[in-house]
Amino acid sequence: MTVGFIGLGNMGAAIAGRLLQGGHDLVVWNRSPAAADRLAAERGVRRAASPAETLQGDLAFSMLADDAAVEATLVGSGALAAAAKGLVHVNCATVSVTLSERLEAMHQALGLAYVAAPVLGRPDAAAAGQLHVLAAGEAAALARARPLLELVGQRVWAVGDHAPMANVVKLACNFALAATIETLGEAGALAKAHGVEPQTLYEVMTGSLFASPAYRVYAGLIGEQRFEPAGFRMPLGLKDVRLALEAGEARHAPLPIASLLRDHFLAAIARGDAEKDWSAVAMTAFRNAGL
Amino acid sequence: MTVGFIGLGNMGAAIAGRLLQGGHDLVVWNRSPAAADRLAAERGVRRAASPAETLQGDLAFSMLADDAAVEATLVGSGALAAAAKGLVHVNCATVSVTLSERLEAMHQALGLAYVAAPVLGRPDAAAAGQLHVLAAGEAAALARARPLLELVGQRVWAVGDHAPMANVVKLACNFALAATIETLGEAGALAKAHGVEPQTLYEVMTGSLFASPAYRVYAGLIGEQRFEPAGFRMPLGLKDVRLALEAGEARHAPLPIASLLRDHFLAAIARGDAEKDWSAVAMTAFRNAGL
Amino acid sequence: MTVGFIGLGNMGAAIAGRLLQGGHDLVVWNRSPAAADRLAAERGVRRAASPAETLQGDLAFSMLADDAAVEATLVGSGALAAAAKGLVHVNCATVSVTLSERLEAMHQALGLAYVAAPVLGRPDAAAAGQLHVLAAGEAAALARARPLLELVGQRVWAVGDHAPMANVVKLACNFALAATIETLGEAGALAKAHGVEPQTLYEVMTGSLFASPAYRVYAGLIGEQRFEPAGFRMPLGLKDVRLALEAGEARHAPLPIASLLRDHFLAAIARGDAEKDWSAVAMTAFRNAGL
Amino acid sequence: MTVGFIGLGNMGAAIAGRLLQGGHDLVVWNRSPAAADRLAAERGVRRAASPAETLQGDLAFSMLADDAAVEATLVGSGALAAAAKGLVHVNCATVSVTLSERLEAMHQALGLAYVAAPVLGRPDAAAAGQLHVLAAGEAAALARARPLLELVGQRVWAVGDHAPMANVVKLACNFALAATIETLGEAGALAKAHGVEPQTLYEVMTGSLFASPAYRVYAGLIGEQRFEPAGFRMPLGLKDVRLALEAGEARHAPLPIASLLRDHFLAAIARGDAEKDWSAVAMTAFRNAGL
Repeated sequence: MTVGFIGLGNMGAAIAGRLLQGGHDLVVWNRSPAAADRLAAERGVRRAASPAETLQGDLAFSMLADDAAVEATLVGSGALAAAAKGLVHVNCATVSVTLSERLEAMHQALGLAYVAAPVLGRPDAAAAGQLHVLAAGEAAALARARPLLELVGQRVWAVGDHAPMANVVKLACNFALAATIETLGEAGALAKAHGVEPQTLYEVMTGSLFASPAYRVYAGLIGEQRFEPAGFRMPLGLKDVRLALEAGEARHAPLPIASLLRDHFLAAIARGDAEKDWSAVAMTAFRNAGL
Repeated sequence: MTVGFIGLGNMGAAIAGRLLQGGHDLVVWNRSPAAADRLAAERGVRRAASPAETLQGDLAFSMLADDAAVEATLVGSGALAAAAKGLVHVNCATVSVTLSERLEAMHQALGLAYVAAPVLGRPDAAAAGQLHVLAAGEAAALARARPLLELVGQRVWAVGDHAPMANVVKLACNFALAATIETLGEAGALAKAHGVEPQTLYEVMTGSLFASPAYRVYAGLIGEQRFEPAGFRMPLGLKDVRLALEAGEARHAPLPIASLLRDHFLAAIARGDAEKDWSAVAMTAFRNAGL
Repeated sequence: MTVGFIGLGNMGAAIAGRLLQGGHDLVVWNRSPAAADRLAAERGVRRAASPAETLQGDLAFSMLADDAAVEATLVGSGALAAAAKGLVHVNCATVSVTLSERLEAMHQALGLAYVAAPVLGRPDAAAAGQLHVLAAGEAAALARARPLLELVGQRVWAVGDHAPMANVVKLACNFALAATIETLGEAGALAKAHGVEPQTLYEVMTGSLFASPAYRVYAGLIGEQRFEPAGFRMPLGLKDVRLALEAGEARHAPLPIASLLRDHFLAAIARGDAEKDWSAVAMTAFRNAGL
Repeated sequence: MTVGFIGLGNMGAAIAGRLLQGGHDLVVWNRSPAAADRLAAERGVRRAASPAETLQGDLAFSMLADDAAVEATLVGSGALAAAAKGLVHVNCATVSVTLSERLEAMHQALGLAYVAAPVLGRPDAAAAGQLHVLAAGEAAALARARPLLELVGQRVWAVGDHAPMANVVKLACNFALAATIETLGEAGALAKAHGVEPQTLYEVMTGSLFASPAYRVYAGLIGEQRFEPAGFRMPLGLKDVRLALEAGEARHAPLPIASLLRDHFLAAIARGDAEKDWSAVAMTAFRNAGL
């Protein structure tokens, strides 16, 4: 199938690569043309002259950085309004629930189908087809997108029949990751304050009750204080916590750990840690204990 | 070996059973005599007339409910002062770091060895020898206790050469469990507020990044709101969070998530949930969102 | 002087009344025409056919509900772009710091002067000329606005030479009011839990260390649980706390009490208290204690 | 009247001085004899050889540092058990609610009357008779103590017929002071982050809605960062917040601002501010904003 593809950042490029490996043809667009040029040269994909051109087939993916990029590229540019009727648009970006709600309504009004499919995992997991894909949208559209999503995910989780539900699940997972980081920070500071190396505690935790990828990855980073280069920069962590808080606020759901995390991300950025991995927010607990 | 054993509650009895299965003889004491009588009748163990009588050999275990029970049974009764020189005392109870520090000093002054060996897991795991044992104390004493601890634990984690270090690790783990409960509560409330069943979210979490025993157990309980009968009652959860906070305070280590948990446990007990499992504290997040 | 005036809600009408009493002529505009008609009929002021028409003189006031109303009425309508060069525009509304920054820049680009002059106090204080006016802006503009501001305020506080500084001061004061409400709630719940009537505590507080208008007003409302009719509705309280948090976030300043307040406002609204006075957020503390 | 007096620290000596000025004779005891010697020499008071000797008349005051000092001096020493039947004991110290409950029961069992009368204000206010006295206890005992309490207080607030009620009110007031300090810190940090001097904000606040002694005193200290010499040291602030939290916990009343304050006091002490005035806890907000 020929699939439109917008957004060739690290994650977008990895997903696009999986679709190509799966035998699909791509017509791609990227804000900065270099990435699209490279993919065109290396993999023979067709370059689109505009975002709209990627939306003329049956199915298109987009993987843009944030709400503003989605607004500008798909709405502001007029691309969506010019899309082929019946198109299934699969948006893999982590965007706000509010934007997802608006996009779903716009697609419906334009005779398009909208699937939200944010992912859990980093670009290398995407390149290996090992992401977890959180997908939601109208059932028929989801069914059409699924074979392609299965190329990038070890598992595709269908979490609802409205696209924003996938965004909520993604934000809830990222919130839980941030809570994990803070929990490891506080537990580690408590240990260290009493002469126990945080890594000793983390080995116990990840070798017993907390033997999960999330705890292993972040216990490793925090235990070794390996925060640079950042896998996920501090301001992106703050952004996702803010999106969770806003999604909560829209339905009057307070999230006190998220409130606390927001404050800690701000303090971390204020003291100059903006370029570090978001897991460096765990150092707040150590620092506040004078450790 | 003949091993003294004090405290035959659910967990104590399970641990005692493992020591018997391992071929050891026990001399046991319990505050309410029924449990000791039963073990004497069924398993032929010797009943001690006083706590002191269990402390006359080379090695003794104690598994008492809390700081007060330990103080009364071992210190107030004069048992410790009357113990055989050279005794290795293995305390499996979850007690405060402060009490553990005092006990370590008292043992040393009396020519006794003190090993703290609190455990992770419930009585059925103990009966199956599947606990995680968190052990700390002077190396020689720990070495003598280890073969017996391996009868109850799938793994014995040596976390330090001072007994209180094991108590710190235990409190840090229980704090992390409580943080997990609250995180699941907030994430679930966010999901539900947007029409996603909490169980859908929890399946994604425990099937991907959070595939650990802790998350599986508590996501199950919270997802099904299965809080009675309690595996671990609310006031015990509050107590352990308080012990973590006190251990932090003793070294000027603030633990903001623990502070928040303390407040939520109090509110849960105030609204009448004292008899429920501590995982019911997750319902705070749902209730505060009007769900 | 002939003064333009936009926004005749309760507070706007009270301020307009003071300017009239001070001998000024007004040319007024209001979204719903009834209020403007009434003022025209009763006080002989001139009604403007558009917001732009109020901005053709030397000085104009606006008192609109929120950011969106300011955007729509002054920017979206083209009014500001059509204003007379040299106009001093005095904005008394509580708006976001971000909007105030944008408005200041827009005014400058258009050859207009922008003074932010949010007020502390309720409409009856305005009608009596007893507000506290928090004013900021370029010195010459502020000097021209001051005689008029002194008609509505018992005191005009010049807090800076950039308009947004007045908005920051206003948000900081409203944050401190909200913190006062929460403090009274928690202190009152502690008292009541031990058999002391909250009002007894509040009498001590407001009769000794806390003898200020803020504590007297809110201790009165909370002590008598007199939350309806609302003087300042719950969602407005939430909005102002959110504006404080956003202003903090823009400069990486965490405000943990504001985070906590946001969560409590959300919970209060979720349980159905949206129509009550924002001081009803103090009941959270009583409710969480089972009182 | 001859009045017993135990505890001649700064505050105790000031209160004793007022009683002397009021024409009463004192029989005094102090742990370190120097203070008692001085008072004996300067004012001709009688020195008691033991705490018990001060408790042989109709009325005695005590003003000791904390729970431990009260326990040791009055209970552990056997003084209370040896007191004259019918004695009215007025305890001005800020002690825990739990201790006050126990003391009330002990006095009753011994045929003594117990009045709790903690005070608001510093030693110089005591010397001028300008304290606020928070008094509680059985009515007849309170009536007998009142004339003496009026010598030290500009006002004596009778807050209940059980002594611990006065301790609750005192802890609630100190909690509110600590909340005021944190509120001023956060509001000041928000202002400063946007270019407004905290002192400008504080002038507005204390000149309008927050014109109370508490806000004036602490806005002054924080605005000038005048934290040394300490009027009330950081660890004492932490202690009082902890006592408020414990009093809340005893009745299942969560106090989230107090939890937050506890964490901030710990962090302040951890970074080396233990010798500073407790108002220095406000600097946390500035520091966390990178200011």
